Amino acid sequence: MLSLPQHIVVEFTEIPTLKNPSLICGFPGSGYVGKLAIDHMIEELKAIPFANILSSSFPPQVLIQPDGTTDLMKNTFYFYKGSSNDLVLLSGDAQPVTPESEYEMAEEIIKICDKLGIKTIYTLAAYITGVFSKSPKVYGTSTIPQIVNDFQNYGISTMNGGSITGMNGLILGVGKRKEITGICLLGETSGYVVDAKASKIVLEMLLRMLNLKLDLTGIAKKAQDTEQLVKTIEEQMGQRTGGNSLSMPQHDKKLGYIS
Amino acid sequence: MLSLPQHIVVEFTEIPTLKNPSLICGFPGSGYVGKLAIDHMIEELKAIPFANILSSSFPPQVLIQPDGTTDLMKNTFYFYKGSSNDLVLLSGDAQPVTPESEYEMAEEIIKICDKLGIKTIYTLAAYITGVFSKSPKVYGTSTIPQIVNDFQNYGISTMNGGSITGMNGLILGVGKRKEITGICLLGETSGYVVDAKASKIVLEMLLRMLNLKLDLTGIAKKAQDTEQLVKTIEEQMGQRTGGNSLSMPQHDKKLGYIS
Amino acid sequence: MLSLPQHIVVEFTEIPTLKNPSLICGFPGSGYVGKLAIDHMIEELKAIPFANILSSSFPPQVLIQPDGTTDLMKNTFYFYKGSSNDLVLLSGDAQPVTPESEYEMAEEIIKICDKLGIKTIYTLAAYITGVFSKSPKVYGTSTIPQIVNDFQNYGISTMNGGSITGMNGLILGVGKRKEITGICLLGETSGYVVDAKASKIVLEMLLRMLNLKLDLTGIAKKAQDTEQLVKTIEEQMGQRTGGNSLSMPQHDKKLGYIS
Amino acid sequence: MLSLPQHIVVEFTEIPTLKNPSLICGFPGSGYVGKLAIDHMIEELKAIPFANILSSSFPPQVLIQPDGTTDLMKNTFYFYKGSSNDLVLLSGDAQPVTPESEYEMAEEIIKICDKLGIKTIYTLAAYITGVFSKSPKVYGTSTIPQIVNDFQNYGISTMNGGSITGMNGLILGVGKRKEITGICLLGETSGYVVDAKASKIVLEMLLRMLNLKLDLTGIAKKAQDTEQLVKTIEEQMGQRTGGNSLSMPQHDKKLGYIS
Repeated sequence: MLSLPQHIVVEFTEIPTLKNPSLICGFPGSGYVGKLAIDHMIEELKAIPFANILSSSFPPQVLIQPDGTTDLMKNTFYFYKGSSNDLVLLSGDAQPVTPESEYEMAEEIIKICDKLGIKTIYTLAAYITGVFSKSPKVYGTSTIPQIVNDFQNYGISTMNGGSITGMNGLILGVGKRKEITGICLLGETSGYVVDAKASKIVLEMLLRMLNLKLDLTGIAKKAQDTEQLVKTIEEQMGQRTGGNSLSMPQHDKKLGYIS
Repeated sequence: MLSLPQHIVVEFTEIPTLKNPSLICGFPGSGYVGKLAIDHMIEELKAIPFANILSSSFPPQVLIQPDGTTDLMKNTFYFYKGSSNDLVLLSGDAQPVTPESEYEMAEEIIKICDKLGIKTIYTLAAYITGVFSKSPKVYGTSTIPQIVNDFQNYGISTMNGGSITGMNGLILGVGKRKEITGICLLGETSGYVVDAKASKIVLEMLLRMLNLKLDLTGIAKKAQDTEQLVKTIEEQMGQRTGGNSLSMPQHDKKLGYIS
Repeated sequence: MLSLPQHIVVEFTEIPTLKNPSLICGFPGSGYVGKLAIDHMIEELKAIPFANILSSSFPPQVLIQPDGTTDLMKNTFYFYKGSSNDLVLLSGDAQPVTPESEYEMAEEIIKICDKLGIKTIYTLAAYITGVFSKSPKVYGTSTIPQIVNDFQNYGISTMNGGSITGMNGLILGVGKRKEITGICLLGETSGYVVDAKASKIVLEMLLRMLNLKLDLTGIAKKAQDTEQLVKTIEEQMGQRTGGNSLSMPQHDKKLGYIS
Repeated sequence: MLSLPQHIVVEFTEIPTLKNPSLICGFPGSGYVGKLAIDHMIEELKAIPFANILSSSFPPQVLIQPDGTTDLMKNTFYFYKGSSNDLVLLSGDAQPVTPESEYEMAEEIIKICDKLGIKTIYTLAAYITGVFSKSPKVYGTSTIPQIVNDFQNYGISTMNGGSITGMNGLILGVGKRKEITGICLLGETSGYVVDAKASKIVLEMLLRMLNLKLDLTGIAKKAQDTEQLVKTIEEQMGQRTGGNSLSMPQHDKKLGYIS
């Protein structure tokens, strides 16, 4: 049961033996950037689910499944055995609803990393600008200065202020205290739409960093849908402003970055 | 007393011996769909109260009773001894006010089910569309795929996404983990009014599934009041939009479904 | 210290021996009806403070005192030795900020009642109507049906629905479970202003029920100020609506009642 | 780890031996009055960090550092060895997000004061007026009446009502219960801008009370920036109101005071 005060329950169906595993996290958040990317990875890698996290700090609701049945919300861990490194993938139905339970969930996830021998964590997030960009960038931060320095080799933009809210940030901060290396990749997005285009560029960058190949046809198709949607919105805005789609505040590209 | 950290208190006046009992739950929620149905059942079946749940997670208020006295909010269990199966009916003054206490209350209710030998739970909820429908439908979900498949035999519509918020959902999700079968019936409603019409169709469907007869005169009369109220609202809207009551967004029937 | 999980601290400077004491509670709430009344009583009766309740569930702030110093918020108990019955008076700086801590505070207060031998509690609240009434009424509820019946002898109006939110309600509901008689008197008020007039009629009714005499000059003066303020507001509204002060929705007298 | 229920963690890198130390606190709040002042002091005094407070009651986010890395939010203690008295300086990234955790954090800080032998605490806050003042004043309150009386010798205005919200108030209130003298200095500010001018006058007053000299060039420059910003805002408002910058409600100088 989920009874308080222990309001997080972790259920393993197996504890996989993994070689040098990294964790990749995707949670629902702005633009669904991280969630779309992780679910694409899980599908393409045919990753195998091995643990669920249930919690009374998730939104108080059940989800209707594609087959019409219903179940509690959960975060699910999958593993993938690669040629050199193994991967653990974490896909969440939800983030906790209170600040304190977000910290608590981050600690629970770090405990699981400890159990599985995970030394590096990647979180995938959104960098929100409030405008539609033709060529969105990938931003990055890390708990390790050397990794921040190396970002330029990948064409990843760095930041010198601001914050990363929610699980994508807290997992890195809590992990740092347990000597786990944390990296957050953020895809530039307007924040107005579910943004598969931002998701795709973050995923491409992650795959480069992991030195991993993956069929991206599925997410590329979704990214085209996003582009089409944005085009439609811009046309509608252009009509309202006398046909000038440049009237959007394209100079004001940095509203902040959250996920 | 209700003192924290144990902020749920269950008080039994008797523990009834029941044969093969099912639980029917009605909580205050959108359109009062479930609450009106359960209270009608309790009245018509002359069901006998046998337990109260008090909690500091209910809204911090006392209710004035019809006799002018006042008392704490509570959820009350009733039982009804049927010819074949017995029933337990749960009618709530309120749902808990915080997400975590909703999970906790669901677990407490499942513990009581365990004590009473309940193997099946029905929750009665609202499927909100944002429009007034001439012929509202009953939707359903379950924790068991076979039951979802059987819904078509009853003319119950299924769903393939979305969520059920609050106690009507969580009781099913938490019960599933204790091998209790959960079924939620949702009456289509606009979400704008207390909807006895939605309540009546949900109740009719429940009675068919339970193979139970009940005098529905009382709720049918309330359903007519709802129809009259909706008609008045539509006329007023029609006047504002040039007499065309079809101007309502009747095509946009799926805002989501909550209760 | 106030440290959690025990976030309520009660500090007695003395434990008075009282004969047949009743408790009168006044908390800050709508119109300050109860708070103005209790503070007038404490001043006129020269009641003696003997205990403070501190809590981390009060608003997170300190109050500046009239002498320029500052201190934590608290609820203070006073006693008054009468000719026949003694009184305990409870004046609050604040009500707890979360629903659960309101229940918890109510239980703490009932524990203190138990310690002091208190068998009857009066809470003083506001009955909000949304309109300015020339002759506001006093409403009442109780945990005891016989007391509700007796209200007519005092000219106290009864209610048959609705709720009383916050401490004024919960203290009665929690006390009832410890066999303590609870009575709530509610002064009719618009809800728009600090209403010393509503406070005065509630206080007069309470004094009649307690069979107690008190100089009401102070609160009567404040009640005149309230009347003057309301008159000014009505004149301003009258000017805006063409001089017709009757244009206020005086027929819609029952918005609900809270405190 | 930060795991609940103990959701505050204090980490000392050293426990300094201090002679007659006072604590100065600066938290982020209205106008950043206290935070700007404390960070200026820490920089000019080359104060040495010796302890961090981490807490799951801080906002659930990580901060991007100037070097591009990221870390959890924290409150940091610094010490400075003066010629006569030593100082402890507390600079916070954040205040706790829930009322109860604000009380709890105040208690934790008072425990640390106890450990370090601190007998006097200064908190630096904002006195919000809603208008731009040419010659803002410093207001003060204390837990000790004699100190309030002495404020006039410094030209510090006193108050006779209102409240101080958040850590700046609670630290004084909780400290008072442990016989620690508390003083809050509040800089008059509009509340509309980050106000280095208010910060500077509070800092100057604090230095006079501590009998300490400090180079104020840095904060004086920021105060000029604030003045320039306010001038720009007033000009813009003046244009909108026909060139009359006096149209601002300068008579309504007391909206309240919070921090």
